[in-house]
Amino acid sequence: MPKRNALYAQSGGVTSVINASACGVIETARQHRDRIGKVYAGDNGIVGVLTEDLIDTSRESARTIAGLRHTPGGAFGSARYKLKSLEENRTEYERIIEVCKAHNIGYFFYNGGGDSMDTAHKLSRIGKRLGYPITCIGVPKTVDNDLPITDTCPGFGSVAKYIAISTQEAAKDVISMAETSTKVFILEVMGRHAGWIAAAGGLAGSRPEDAPHIILFPEIPFNRQRFLARVRCCVKDYGYCVVVVSEGARYRNGQFLADTGLVDAFGHKQLGGAATVIANMVRDKLGFKFHYAIADYLQRAARHLASATDVRQAYAVGKAAVELALAGKNAVMPVIVRTSDRPYKWSIGSTSLGRVANREKMMPRRYITKDGFGITAAGRRYLEPLIQGEDYPPYRNGLPDYVTLKRVMVRKKLKTKFVLS
Amino acid sequence: MPKRNALYAQSGGVTSVINASACGVIETARQHRDRIGKVYAGDNGIVGVLTEDLIDTSRESARTIAGLRHTPGGAFGSARYKLKSLEENRTEYERIIEVCKAHNIGYFFYNGGGDSMDTAHKLSRIGKRLGYPITCIGVPKTVDNDLPITDTCPGFGSVAKYIAISTQEAAKDVISMAETSTKVFILEVMGRHAGWIAAAGGLAGSRPEDAPHIILFPEIPFNRQRFLARVRCCVKDYGYCVVVVSEGARYRNGQFLADTGLVDAFGHKQLGGAATVIANMVRDKLGFKFHYAIADYLQRAARHLASATDVRQAYAVGKAAVELALAGKNAVMPVIVRTSDRPYKWSIGSTSLGRVANREKMMPRRYITKDGFGITAAGRRYLEPLIQGEDYPPYRNGLPDYVTLKRVMVRKKLKTKFVLS
Repeated sequence: MPKRNALYAQSGGVTSVINASACGVIETARQHRDRIGKVYAGDNGIVGVLTEDLIDTSRESARTIAGLRHTPGGAFGSARYKLKSLEENRTEYERIIEVCKAHNIGYFFYNGGGDSMDTAHKLSRIGKRLGYPITCIGVPKTVDNDLPITDTCPGFGSVAKYIAISTQEAAKDVISMAETSTKVFILEVMGRHAGWIAAAGGLAGSRPEDAPHIILFPEIPFNRQRFLARVRCCVKDYGYCVVVVSEGARYRNGQFLADTGLVDAFGHKQLGGAATVIANMVRDKLGFKFHYAIADYLQRAARHLASATDVRQAYAVGKAAVELALAGKNAVMPVIVRTSDRPYKWSIGSTSLGRVANREKMMPRRYITKDGFGITAAGRRYLEPLIQGEDYPPYRNGLPDYVTLKRVMVRKKLKTKFVLS
Repeated sequence: MPKRNALYAQSGGVTSVINASACGVIETARQHRDRIGKVYAGDNGIVGVLTEDLIDTSRESARTIAGLRHTPGGAFGSARYKLKSLEENRTEYERIIEVCKAHNIGYFFYNGGGDSMDTAHKLSRIGKRLGYPITCIGVPKTVDNDLPITDTCPGFGSVAKYIAISTQEAAKDVISMAETSTKVFILEVMGRHAGWIAAAGGLAGSRPEDAPHIILFPEIPFNRQRFLARVRCCVKDYGYCVVVVSEGARYRNGQFLADTGLVDAFGHKQLGGAATVIANMVRDKLGFKFHYAIADYLQRAARHLASATDVRQAYAVGKAAVELALAGKNAVMPVIVRTSDRPYKWSIGSTSLGRVANREKMMPRRYITKDGFGITAAGRRYLEPLIQGEDYPPYRNGLPDYVTLKRVMVRKKLKTKFVLS
């Protein structure tokens, strides 16, 4: 069989370790030059694939590719661009096949969440039908930790570590000032549908008096009266109260605490401001001095504080994706298999894309305490291993020495331009 | 001369390295047991001194005291409690003298900003007048970097490093998504009166295309039209725009972008929300998708990302404070003297408290670019050395192993209770 090239694309919200997966894909492909030609990357993910804007990763030095392991963001550009269904827009899938054909691409590694796994899955089928079979392998990534089957999603462990440590540190600040200053501190974290990230804040402390004293999960309908009573109680008992609130926290009727009315490309509501709503509630009803922080992108970009476990797993799924392809597998995704909690042991397995596409893994109710404000021992047992270990980037002149790619573009071969819908 | 005890107190907003100064004071005092007795610490700063709630630091192990060097927050508790003027409330000063007398305290080390230096200064005078002379030494601390004479203030270098790196990392995230998602990212940082912290964000990049593209300083009156034009220009030229906005950014008439109407114990307006105001402006006038983060306490508590230079300086001023006291100085404060920019060299000097009390060091206009949106080469030359070096705390179980004190209280000796005004 003649050597075919590979295509790698990043999709959706980036993470502090998605480039570690890219590093795993590219380094492993380079180790198999006898079977895989060049690795091209979609410039801004699938958008670049559609428009035939491909980055030639073979033009990047081994040193630069190695540096991806410690560089946050999406080095090749990512996209929030959801392909329509085959029935609605067959043209998009056909175009991708056309681009792959033009550039002798036989392998497609798609690094993303549930939507992307669905795309990869469809592509593997349509390629075959159109007489140009492509090996499509998913590479899991999402800070939301909501992919099924895999024990965790690369990207999540580092956000979890960042949120746990930020909560711990801010609490150290607040407790030392509470007597005469701020009594209530609120940290807003990501997690639109599931409270995985908010739950990670719970790792900051383990005794009742430790922060965070209250976690507001999307899974638990927000009850203002119960919340305020708890805040008052914490301030009385401990002198202060630290709250971690998920951006996805909502009322019993499903309305988000902070509903701005904006909608993104996926039709998801654009949120922000749960902390502000909570803070105003505390001020108006309890009169305590408050402060709030909104971590936003800082939490998913904080490569300086990555979990070493997360980095290793991100690299491992990238590496495994190439190995699966070389083993003749198609329409699969490497997964992380937990074989032991303490000590934490994991290995890499795989599952079919059909089983992960468009399925969200919710947080089990048993990870949340009965009162709905904290995490249980079971939740801690699941989360704790994921933040283990530090993996510091190298520094230069006081700043992390993150790599920037040359991004040499592949010469276009198609005559037609593709206009994004 | 009989051996006298020392009193140490933390004041005002805490930092990620104020405990490193405490460590410097206590370890140095312990090295001079022949001349200094015990070191007591005010529980919650000056408040605990007034109420005779003193922590006996001699009950903490050498290991715990050493651990203060890497622990953020105020380990002994701090206070936003400004002593009134001698004329207005002489009782408070007399009470402090009374407490010192009761506990044979001959040295007072006050770790704070401008207000605290003023208090220490007054106390050194009133002690003498009341026939109980106390050696009062200031220990500089403030993330605001606004103390005069000293090259920088311990606490600032670490916030600067945190903001520079957070800006750099968030920018890596935004640039990779900008094609199809967020185009404008806004990071709100501290700095009520001076733009030192906002300026530090400027260290994230050095070329025009690098983030941050816009810094909004308190020093430069905010002009909506010019700001929006610049945002539009950045998105056009670079595909995205990263803005660092100081909480103290204000309009030409002096009104803060985010004026909540709340006032703290020092009579300072309580702010928060400049990022929200800016974000809404961008959305309403330009229609770009935006995200914003509010770093709030995370920035001044982030010991995990401390500047090694800052940690060393924080320790050094604590150590120097004790040495100055032992050398017979009074009413002075150790300062950091810059002897060279590149390579950065510094030494410890000292100045009289009278020269630093209640004087704010503003950021020189020449550190801000002519257009008011960035930092100049001179600004960079000043700031860059302050973020050099990493000083990671030890970790345990995925989290920094921050120390917690036993906080054994000193038995009270006074019959009278003091009621805070």
